[in-house]
Amino acid sequence: MTLQLNLNNDQLSTEELNELAAMRKRCARRILLSTSLASSGHPGGSLSSLDLLLTTYGCISHRPDEPLWENRDRVVMSIGHVSPGVYGVLAEYGYFSEEAFLTGFRRAGSGFPGHVERIVPGVEWDTGNLGQGLSTGVGMAMAMRLKGMDQRVIVYMGDGELQKGQAVEAMRFAHKYKLNNLVVIVDRNKLQICGPTNDIMPMDVNALFSASGWNCELLTDGHDYNQIFSTFSKVFGGRVADPSLPTLINAQTIMGKGISFMENLSKYHGSPLKKEQLDKAMEELGVENDFDKWSKLREKPVTTETRLENKVCYPQIDPGTPVTYDADTKTDNRSAYGTALLGLAQANNDPENKAKIIGVSCDLEGSVKMGGFRRHMEEAFIESGIQEHHAATMAGAISREELVVFFSTFGVFAVSEVYNQNRLNDINHTNLKVVATHLGLDVGEDGPTHQGIDYIGLMRNYFNFSIFLPADPNQTDRIIRYVGATSGNHFVGMGRSKLNMILAEDGSPYFGGDYQFEPGRADWVRKGTDGTIITYGALTTNVMEAWRKLTDDGFSVAVLMSASIAPFDRQSVIEAAKIGPILTVEDHHADTGLGSIVGMILAEEEIGVAFKRLGVTRYGSSGKPADLYAAQGLDGEGIAGEFKKLV
Amino acid sequence: MTLQLNLNNDQLSTEELNELAAMRKRCARRILLSTSLASSGHPGGSLSSLDLLLTTYGCISHRPDEPLWENRDRVVMSIGHVSPGVYGVLAEYGYFSEEAFLTGFRRAGSGFPGHVERIVPGVEWDTGNLGQGLSTGVGMAMAMRLKGMDQRVIVYMGDGELQKGQAVEAMRFAHKYKLNNLVVIVDRNKLQICGPTNDIMPMDVNALFSASGWNCELLTDGHDYNQIFSTFSKVFGGRVADPSLPTLINAQTIMGKGISFMENLSKYHGSPLKKEQLDKAMEELGVENDFDKWSKLREKPVTTETRLENKVCYPQIDPGTPVTYDADTKTDNRSAYGTALLGLAQANNDPENKAKIIGVSCDLEGSVKMGGFRRHMEEAFIESGIQEHHAATMAGAISREELVVFFSTFGVFAVSEVYNQNRLNDINHTNLKVVATHLGLDVGEDGPTHQGIDYIGLMRNYFNFSIFLPADPNQTDRIIRYVGATSGNHFVGMGRSKLNMILAEDGSPYFGGDYQFEPGRADWVRKGTDGTIITYGALTTNVMEAWRKLTDDGFSVAVLMSASIAPFDRQSVIEAAKIGPILTVEDHHADTGLGSIVGMILAEEEIGVAFKRLGVTRYGSSGKPADLYAAQGLDGEGIAGEFKKLV
Repeated sequence: MTLQLNLNNDQLSTEELNELAAMRKRCARRILLSTSLASSGHPGGSLSSLDLLLTTYGCISHRPDEPLWENRDRVVMSIGHVSPGVYGVLAEYGYFSEEAFLTGFRRAGSGFPGHVERIVPGVEWDTGNLGQGLSTGVGMAMAMRLKGMDQRVIVYMGDGELQKGQAVEAMRFAHKYKLNNLVVIVDRNKLQICGPTNDIMPMDVNALFSASGWNCELLTDGHDYNQIFSTFSKVFGGRVADPSLPTLINAQTIMGKGISFMENLSKYHGSPLKKEQLDKAMEELGVENDFDKWSKLREKPVTTETRLENKVCYPQIDPGTPVTYDADTKTDNRSAYGTALLGLAQANNDPENKAKIIGVSCDLEGSVKMGGFRRHMEEAFIESGIQEHHAATMAGAISREELVVFFSTFGVFAVSEVYNQNRLNDINHTNLKVVATHLGLDVGEDGPTHQGIDYIGLMRNYFNFSIFLPADPNQTDRIIRYVGATSGNHFVGMGRSKLNMILAEDGSPYFGGDYQFEPGRADWVRKGTDGTIITYGALTTNVMEAWRKLTDDGFSVAVLMSASIAPFDRQSVIEAAKIGPILTVEDHHADTGLGSIVGMILAEEEIGVAFKRLGVTRYGSSGKPADLYAAQGLDGEGIAGEFKKLV
Repeated sequence: MTLQLNLNNDQLSTEELNELAAMRKRCARRILLSTSLASSGHPGGSLSSLDLLLTTYGCISHRPDEPLWENRDRVVMSIGHVSPGVYGVLAEYGYFSEEAFLTGFRRAGSGFPGHVERIVPGVEWDTGNLGQGLSTGVGMAMAMRLKGMDQRVIVYMGDGELQKGQAVEAMRFAHKYKLNNLVVIVDRNKLQICGPTNDIMPMDVNALFSASGWNCELLTDGHDYNQIFSTFSKVFGGRVADPSLPTLINAQTIMGKGISFMENLSKYHGSPLKKEQLDKAMEELGVENDFDKWSKLREKPVTTETRLENKVCYPQIDPGTPVTYDADTKTDNRSAYGTALLGLAQANNDPENKAKIIGVSCDLEGSVKMGGFRRHMEEAFIESGIQEHHAATMAGAISREELVVFFSTFGVFAVSEVYNQNRLNDINHTNLKVVATHLGLDVGEDGPTHQGIDYIGLMRNYFNFSIFLPADPNQTDRIIRYVGATSGNHFVGMGRSKLNMILAEDGSPYFGGDYQFEPGRADWVRKGTDGTIITYGALTTNVMEAWRKLTDDGFSVAVLMSASIAPFDRQSVIEAAKIGPILTVEDHHADTGLGSIVGMILAEEEIGVAFKRLGVTRYGSSGKPADLYAAQGLDGEGIAGEFKKLV
């Protein structure tokens, strides 16, 4: 039996207070021991949030023996570094043994990493980079709302990390959507790594949350169990200024609380105690210092038995009926995306029920063609404002709750601006569909700040994202339906302009009819014997123009369209090399996209074949895409000319 | 003679009011014409900020015939899309002709891009991605302070872009450093692309700035010249609640102001008028619609005569005396960086005078070893708190003001988190030195969220950043001194752990003594005949261990250390290929780092040689670096084993 506090009571009983005091002592010991054993880690903040955490788990709905129980309340530790405190408390509530924690902490491959990760039973999210956890909690709270559940989400934040701007984006969003199932507990110990928060970057915590309209509760002593309990009871019971809104609990705490010589010293943010200090601390706690015993146990090989493996939670999705655009249709990939997304919604979102497919955008609904999707079911569309950092993290969190999330905005925002947010999504095994429009020089007149030419260069650094770049509206339709129906992280990128439909030699739409998209398979749109042009995305129209020019000039040119960049069709490159010279063409930085991948494959296969990469070699300017392409040799003529030089 | 308003006056004279009205009419015409001529662009917001802008240039110190005059007040347009308004006003004040603007606007290669850029005389910063401009303005205001100048910085922001969290980071910073030479004018037209700001993402603008302690002035009619002037007079004259602090002017405006059918419609944020609408608008303005005349003039080739080319502003820097660490020294690159930075400070920063070298960090001064630098001259060190987005942009802006700026934090924050901020710095030709510590699996116990394994993969997408990754503390010292003394953007990356000094065959420090770092040159640390290992950075110690093992086993192995990744030493790779098999080894994503560059070169040179890339192939875990390396085959044994397989 673990501690369970009754929020209907006015106060804690003496037994409960005694129990909490005993638990605290055991947890404090674990915090100090684990960090000293690992010779690294964060004891100071772990001790400052300890009493809040112990009380929290006494007040929420959870099942230590079933950590992924669907109806649990969620606790997100945005301060991922207080892992010793979290693990200590979870051990106390029976999620795993103290031994597993103390012998594994911060050892390679163990179940107890330095920043909290979902491999630890009871942990909801891998965190560590500060300022993102509130967006994660907002995403979970939104997911509860979308699924019609009333579970609570509690987010622990540090007062240092509140400096991150993303936190304000999340606050504002939570206010707009009235997420009253969301509570933030700020561990206000007034210290960060380099000193007092007031010296490093002064801030009025209440004013910050108030400016976004939150309820603010001050907890003057975050170590007084009675006060903590009565505040939780009040807040969880909805007895706040405006019960329709989210609530901040601003908890005044003491870094290093409970160990006389550690209190209020920022050096203990990230420094464990040395041997004699540990002796002294254990003496203060009135417990034996059994460091040596544990140290010895840590010499054994690391065990992984408590580690939770990633569990895929993905709904059954009907891909709907593919749309084929005929040879004469002139449209852009963006519109084909919008139509396919609406098709997915029609097949899977019942406006009378809860949505399975969710759309997230950032003040660009029209440009990214999500209007039809929104109108089909307003509730399924989330407008996040010009707050991409928050939106990306939130979208990732929602996608872990058995919902399919499409996150769409321009490439520079969906890829370049939120690179690190999507990195953390990737680490968290989200099921996010990032669909970026307006990639490349194809953006045109909006100029270099808006021309994302690094989407492959960036997205390839993740390990769990696929990268798909459709050649035309038909292929866009097939790819969007594929990613909607398939779990995991998928990136789909496209330009802004209208494209010619890619046609087979017989004049029919190449990617229409019963064409099926298959990750890792490139398409031989034209066969040829003199050499191969490999391409994808916005430049397919120009490549086909080059192909016509070259054909007219008597060349036999193969065209390989590789929409699937990750996974990549290695075999087709090897085939191409057997034909002859290879020219890659892309609306992307010439050094970091398709060309670099093809080059690497040729080198690894030890194939010496004439090879040239065409792409963007300097920042673009502001003008019509055709002019920008011509200026960098990416028009039909330029491409044809390079091919001739190569053969 | 252009308009000059006297801030000592109480009110505008009738003549001045008439003049402003006439100017407004001419500018409104230009806004509508230019966007209709380009068939794209942003007329609505240009009209809402027009009256504020016209009055601003009448009140500030500036020289239209000398746009880079050092003592000018700076106007930063964070809302880069209102370029038609900005160019119209600048033309009015004589920076260039109306003709140049109207014939060039949004044409490829012209001097008048769609979002404001510094190639336009009078424009201070290339903007477009929203939310960064306040950080830029803060950087300029800091630079004025650091240089002992009292010029004013005025930042124009939109109310939509205030949703970006980075804006709050900048506000908080400006308050901490009491930048009372900074004024923000918010064009509060209450509309953004997708509709009313209040529907998209509700916000209380005054509360937001107030929460960060700013003075807040409300301007109830941002189109009433008398009210604008009296507010400017009050604010610029320091007659605000607390003259020691920065000030917000919250100006209530009307999107599309002055054209009856455009007012308060968000569709005109980004849509120009069609032919008949333009006729009607010109009629309302009481001017002739000479669209056709200009349209004809735009058929001529684009002229570039007004374009300002980038001017390098970089101070003379003494690199100081290099430090050589002897063969037995065991230290980390971070500490060598700290020592070299202090050396640069001692040689160039006179504590009695103004600093030339500036350090910026984000609550990690100790970890990035900037403590010595700070203590040498407190004023030269800028603590930005956990606000990396703001810090990166601000650091870039300071570096354009003839100051040398070192921006240091962990790799995941300096590279991954602020990728898009540094992209805009790069576009702006800053002189930033990004020195990232804690790269790679070498971060160890802090785990995957803190292990940046994408620094080459990301930084290579910029066109103006060099990338240097020193092999040991000696090379770190030389590289830091080099980048300090050299203009432009430089990235220097390093791990966390102590490294063995790289020694020449005679046992002396290879990178010590009179070794000089040269960009684009790799170093043959060992010669050999069986094949080559190419490496850099944190794994040099393991590579030398592999070299010893292989040598003991009778192999003759060359070791090429390539600290300079951009520019890259192509020739040495070609030489290596002549020797035999090539193995690349790096603490970096195996697909996007050194290995991908070497592969691309081999392919381009059509060289078929045995080639293998060793690197990070999955997210790391939390543990000792040695264990993490071993788990991914990057320890001495793993490297030696792969080399043997290859030959």
